Amino acid sequence: MRGQMKFGLNIPTKLVFGAGELKNLSAMTLPGKRALIVISAGTSMKKHGYLDMLVEQLDKAGVAHTTFDKISPNPTHAHVMQGSQVCLDHQCDFVIGLGGGSSIDTAKAIAITAAMGGDFWDYVSGGTGGGKPVERALPIVAIPTTAGTGTEVDLWGVVTNETTHEKMGFGSPHIFPTLAIVDPELMMSVPPRLTAYQGFDAFFHAAEGYISRAHTPISDLYALEAIRLLYKYLPVAVADPANRWARIKVAWASTLAGMVESTSCCTGEHAMEHALSALKPELPHGAGLIALSGHYFKAFKNDSMKRYMKMAEKMRQVKSARPSDFLDALEVMKRACAVDDVRLADWGFTGADAEALADNAIATGSAMLDLDPRFLTREEIIQIYIDTINA
Amino acid sequence: MRGQMKFGLNIPTKLVFGAGELKNLSAMTLPGKRALIVISAGTSMKKHGYLDMLVEQLDKAGVAHTTFDKISPNPTHAHVMQGSQVCLDHQCDFVIGLGGGSSIDTAKAIAITAAMGGDFWDYVSGGTGGGKPVERALPIVAIPTTAGTGTEVDLWGVVTNETTHEKMGFGSPHIFPTLAIVDPELMMSVPPRLTAYQGFDAFFHAAEGYISRAHTPISDLYALEAIRLLYKYLPVAVADPANRWARIKVAWASTLAGMVESTSCCTGEHAMEHALSALKPELPHGAGLIALSGHYFKAFKNDSMKRYMKMAEKMRQVKSARPSDFLDALEVMKRACAVDDVRLADWGFTGADAEALADNAIATGSAMLDLDPRFLTREEIIQIYIDTINA
Repeated sequence: MRGQMKFGLNIPTKLVFGAGELKNLSAMTLPGKRALIVISAGTSMKKHGYLDMLVEQLDKAGVAHTTFDKISPNPTHAHVMQGSQVCLDHQCDFVIGLGGGSSIDTAKAIAITAAMGGDFWDYVSGGTGGGKPVERALPIVAIPTTAGTGTEVDLWGVVTNETTHEKMGFGSPHIFPTLAIVDPELMMSVPPRLTAYQGFDAFFHAAEGYISRAHTPISDLYALEAIRLLYKYLPVAVADPANRWARIKVAWASTLAGMVESTSCCTGEHAMEHALSALKPELPHGAGLIALSGHYFKAFKNDSMKRYMKMAEKMRQVKSARPSDFLDALEVMKRACAVDDVRLADWGFTGADAEALADNAIATGSAMLDLDPRFLTREEIIQIYIDTINA
Repeated sequence: MRGQMKFGLNIPTKLVFGAGELKNLSAMTLPGKRALIVISAGTSMKKHGYLDMLVEQLDKAGVAHTTFDKISPNPTHAHVMQGSQVCLDHQCDFVIGLGGGSSIDTAKAIAITAAMGGDFWDYVSGGTGGGKPVERALPIVAIPTTAGTGTEVDLWGVVTNETTHEKMGFGSPHIFPTLAIVDPELMMSVPPRLTAYQGFDAFFHAAEGYISRAHTPISDLYALEAIRLLYKYLPVAVADPANRWARIKVAWASTLAGMVESTSCCTGEHAMEHALSALKPELPHGAGLIALSGHYFKAFKNDSMKRYMKMAEKMRQVKSARPSDFLDALEVMKRACAVDDVRLADWGFTGADAEALADNAIATGSAMLDLDPRFLTREEIIQIYIDTINA
C-alpha cells in the first residue's frame, strides 16, 4: 500500500455535531420504531439528566424504548448477552448507546448478537473468539458523553471476556453507527482527571493511526488535526472544565480521531494497553495508554522519523528537526494535563507481570502489533512493560 | 452556525482510490445486477479502452449492461430524458457514470428520473425547475476519468436546460454515489490544457468552499489540503502529463475538493460561471472559472482576510501577512499551468452581455451567491463580469 497511494474511504455514519444537538433528536430521521437504550450501571446518565433528555426526545418522535442499564467501565461478554436478550424480548429494531465508550461498544455488540443470533464471542476474531463473519447488525445510534473513544464514527468495539481474561477488539462495517450525535454539552460534567484520560485516548488513536503501517492520505489529515487540537485544547479543558469552547474542540478532535480509526488503525500501544486493563479492569484505558506511551513511542523514533517530526510540528507549531521533539512534546502535554504522575505500580502491576502481559498482548492484539512502524519482538514488548512498570 | 461549531458530516459513498483500481471492479460489491453505463458522445472512452475495461469487469461479475453514449460536454435535459427511457426500457437497477463530470452528473440525473418518474426538470430547485422533492434514486457508481468535478463524492449535479438557457445545479442525499472508483490511470490521457481547466475547477471547489459562509471544520480540513496539493502538483501534471505521481496527487485533490462540496458549498463564482457556459456552451467550465477568479476573489479580500492568508500559506508554504498574497499566488498558479491567457473575449463575450449574465446568475444561482463572504449587489456582479470580459 505505501508509496502507491491506494486506499479506501467509507464512513457512512451521519454525524451531527454541536452543543445542544441532543435536544434536536426528535427532528432527526431515526432508524427504527423501538429502541434499546444502553447506558452504564453508574448514576451519571440519570443524575445529569441525559437519559431523561433522550427519553423525552424519543417520546416526542413516537419511538418506543427500553433501557438496559448494566454496563461497567470495561464492558463484559456477560452484559452483551444479557442486553441482547432484553433487546430480543422487547423486539427492539435499533440500539442507542448513550454514554462513554463502554455503553456504545456494548450497544454495537448487542446490535450484532441480536441480529445474528447465538453467542457474541462467536463473532469475535482473534484470541478465543469464534471468528464467524458478521453479516448484519441492528442499526446503531451513538450518543457519546465523553470525548475519547471515537467509537461513534468507527466500526470497532472492545469487550472483555471475564472468563478468559481477554480484552478483545471486534469490528465490522455493519457496526458503523447510522447516526452519531456528538453534543459537547453532555461532556461538560466529566471531571478533570477523566477528561485527561479520555482525551489522551483520542490523542493516541490519532498518533498511533498516524505512525501505523495502515495510514492513508485521509487518515493522515484527520490524525494531524486531532493531534493539533488536543495538544492545544485538552490542557484547557482539564484546567477549566467549564470552558465550553475547549470542550467543543476536544469533542471534535475525539471524533476526528475516531475517523482515523476508520481509515487507518491503532498500533501496538493499544494492544499492550488492552492486556493491562484485561488483567486489572480497574485501570482506566487512558491511564494505561499514558503510562505506556513514553517507552512505546521511544521504540520507533528512528523508524518513523518524518512522521514524529510532523506530529511535533502540529503540536508546537514550529519546525522540528528531530524525531525526539515528539517525545518531548508528549511529556509537556502530559504535564499540562496533570497526568505525568500516572504509574502502573499504583494499580498493583509489578515487573513479574511483564511476560504474561506481553503474551496476552500478542495473543489478543497481534493485528495491531503488526501495524507498528517496526516489528517488535516478544523481548522488546516485555522490556517496554518492564520499563513502564519501573518508571 | 458560525462561531458555534454546529455542523453535520455525511458522505456515505464508498471510495476506492488508486491507480489500476478499475481492473478490480469485479471483486467489489456492486449495487445491482443490470447496469446502465452512461458515457459521452465523444470517442475517448472507447479509444483509450476504458469502456472495454469496464465492460470486461461487469461481465466477469455477471452484471448485465446497456450503454448510453450520447452525453455532450454540458449535459442537457434532453439527454437525461433519453437516458432515463433507455434505463427503464432495459430495466436497469443501477447507473454507472464513466467519464468526466458531464457523464457522471447525467448518470445522477437519470438515477433520479428513472426512480421517481416524470420529467427531470420537476426535481430541479430554483430557476424554472419544479422543485419537487427527490425521494429516491437508483444506486450510482461513479468512475471519473478527469480530475476536477469531485462529483464522485458529492450530492450535486449540473444539467443545462437547452430551452430556457439555464445551467442548473441539483442536489439530493440520494445521489451520493454508492461506490466511487477514482483510478488516476484513467486520467493519464487528458491533454495539458484540459488537465489545467479541470484541475482549476477542483481548486475553486476548495477555495470557494473555504471562504463560503457554509464552511465547517471538516470542509476546512479537506479544502486546505486540496488547495495545497493542487498548487504543488497541478503545474507538474500540466507540464508533464505522463507524470503518474502528479496525476495521482491531482486526482486525490479533486476528490477532496468534492468532499468540500459535500460538507461546505460553492459560492458565487460557480453561479457566475454557470451563467457564462449556459450562454456559450462551448466555454469549458474550468476556463470560465479561471477567467472570473481574479476579479471575483478580489471582491472579498477585505471580508475574509484570515482565510485568504491561510490559503496563501498552504499554497506558498510561508507565513502570509496580507490577504492579497492569495490573489498573487493564484496568478502564479495560473501562469505555472499556462492558463493565464484565458480571455472570455475569445469565446465571443462582450461587455454588452454583462447585465444578462448577472441576471441569469442571480436567477439560477442565488443559493450559491448567498454563501459569498459578503453579499454582492447586482451592480457588483455586473461589474465583475465587465472587468473580466475587458481583461
